[in-house]
Amino acid sequence: MKPIKTVAILGLGLLGGSIGRAVKKYSPTITVNGYDLYEASGQRALEIGFIDEAFIRPEDAVKDADCVILSAPLSAFAPLAQMVIPYMKDGAILTDTGSVKGSVVEAIKPLLTDNIIFIPAHPIAGTEQSGVEAGFADLFQNKRVIFTPLDENNQEALKSLSDFWQALGANTETMEIAHHDLVFAVVSHIPHLVAYNIVGTAAHLEQVSEGEVIRYSASGFRDFTRLASSDPIVWRDVFLNNKEAVLEMLGRFVEDLFDLQRAIRYEDGAKLQEYFTKAQKIRKSIIDAGQESADVNFGRKN
Amino acid sequence: MKPIKTVAILGLGLLGGSIGRAVKKYSPTITVNGYDLYEASGQRALEIGFIDEAFIRPEDAVKDADCVILSAPLSAFAPLAQMVIPYMKDGAILTDTGSVKGSVVEAIKPLLTDNIIFIPAHPIAGTEQSGVEAGFADLFQNKRVIFTPLDENNQEALKSLSDFWQALGANTETMEIAHHDLVFAVVSHIPHLVAYNIVGTAAHLEQVSEGEVIRYSASGFRDFTRLASSDPIVWRDVFLNNKEAVLEMLGRFVEDLFDLQRAIRYEDGAKLQEYFTKAQKIRKSIIDAGQESADVNFGRKN
Repeated sequence: MKPIKTVAILGLGLLGGSIGRAVKKYSPTITVNGYDLYEASGQRALEIGFIDEAFIRPEDAVKDADCVILSAPLSAFAPLAQMVIPYMKDGAILTDTGSVKGSVVEAIKPLLTDNIIFIPAHPIAGTEQSGVEAGFADLFQNKRVIFTPLDENNQEALKSLSDFWQALGANTETMEIAHHDLVFAVVSHIPHLVAYNIVGTAAHLEQVSEGEVIRYSASGFRDFTRLASSDPIVWRDVFLNNKEAVLEMLGRFVEDLFDLQRAIRYEDGAKLQEYFTKAQKIRKSIIDAGQESADVNFGRKN
Repeated sequence: MKPIKTVAILGLGLLGGSIGRAVKKYSPTITVNGYDLYEASGQRALEIGFIDEAFIRPEDAVKDADCVILSAPLSAFAPLAQMVIPYMKDGAILTDTGSVKGSVVEAIKPLLTDNIIFIPAHPIAGTEQSGVEAGFADLFQNKRVIFTPLDENNQEALKSLSDFWQALGANTETMEIAHHDLVFAVVSHIPHLVAYNIVGTAAHLEQVSEGEVIRYSASGFRDFTRLASSDPIVWRDVFLNNKEAVLEMLGRFVEDLFDLQRAIRYEDGAKLQEYFTKAQKIRKSIIDAGQESADVNFGRKN
């Protein structure tokens, strides 16, 4: 399989926009076709310069593309795939940036035709921001992109897509679909849900004003607000698409929380101390693994 | 009341150590007496230079002090107060750095004698680190110190203590005791408990390895690990001392979480989206209020 020479990005938000910018910086010979549901975002992407052409219809964006990347919220994947698959080139790769893989594969597999190759992918990179202005070229530097290849995927196509991502600075790896969805329920989806929830709980209180929550947020609360400021539609779709794994993990989370709640109610200090001591070690491992900065307070200046 | 000329710091960890360092930097004419349960910490504090003398017995540290600051874990406050009150100077101020005020006042009030003035205080400043090395002189710059004064506190003593803290860079304010404990249950204690809990839940899983949790932690999980790496004994004591408010807030948190869980189970996307959209606004308010940096990903470099 030849290297990717033209890529179509369908969805020009944080991830799609970062892919475009990274291609322009690190693989400038690749042509980037862009499509977004909002025409204004396509025009803005063109102005910023991270796509070469803005298309109004997704099917026009994919015609000459060696690789088509779905980078919209998850609920748009199947409708987009249905629209573009009949227009894709023979042998072209269809891939995505979705945080959930099982439901995406389930929805897209029936739409596939023999002449295209679908390789599900998940770049483990992002920020709490969203929209056409949010992306940046170095988002994928030293980040991981996980492929959950289908049985029928040939190694050649997987290599082309890996090369594409590696050129943008990412490390690529593969994972089994169901395991992917369980791992990310734990490390990403539940943390986001809990963050949204704690921010919501604080906002609903009648005894404590929102002004007080904001004023004293540095004592812990603000750490949660970063995840809770992530794109609401993207995250609505994540929870709806990874329902089973999220509900299972949420059950465990609440079970553990009740265990801690009970320790507080019955004043079991030894249990609390033991639990907290174990948690402390995990952060050290994350820092040692180069996944986090060792700077105190996340290196914040205020 | 005269300004504070000698201060005794009982507990030389993150907060006590930062007070010592801040005094040396911003109020260098004040003498600092230091005591820590661990003699080695006292010696180390002396070496670092943030105390002028290290005492082996707390009662010796307070004898000539105009102000005695309890900065140990909460469970040590009453035993320490009992030991030192009989040795304190007439008219000296007894204060503290505890994150809970109701239980501290309840425990210390019966121990007070007429010749000393107890002013409960809570500096809203800290990091996830602990111990004699963890403090720094600028920890209190532009941070708040909340006093929850007792009815009998005279304004003069409160002014002396305010002046002391303001010289270290802090802004001072007052709050009613029960309200303080409720506010901090929400903005600090529940966030810490939830952070400890999510880290614990992830660590207990048999289907997802600890290596995977660490490797993919940048997708959300790592944000929780900062709070979860806070001092286990300090936080054990916070939960035991603010039991009622924490249990009440925890009840609300779980109630809200069940509401979100139900929305996921019944695939109520509109409800999820609405909830997440509201949460997004809170972070903006915190950033606008100067309580958080606007840098994406907390300004992390990895």
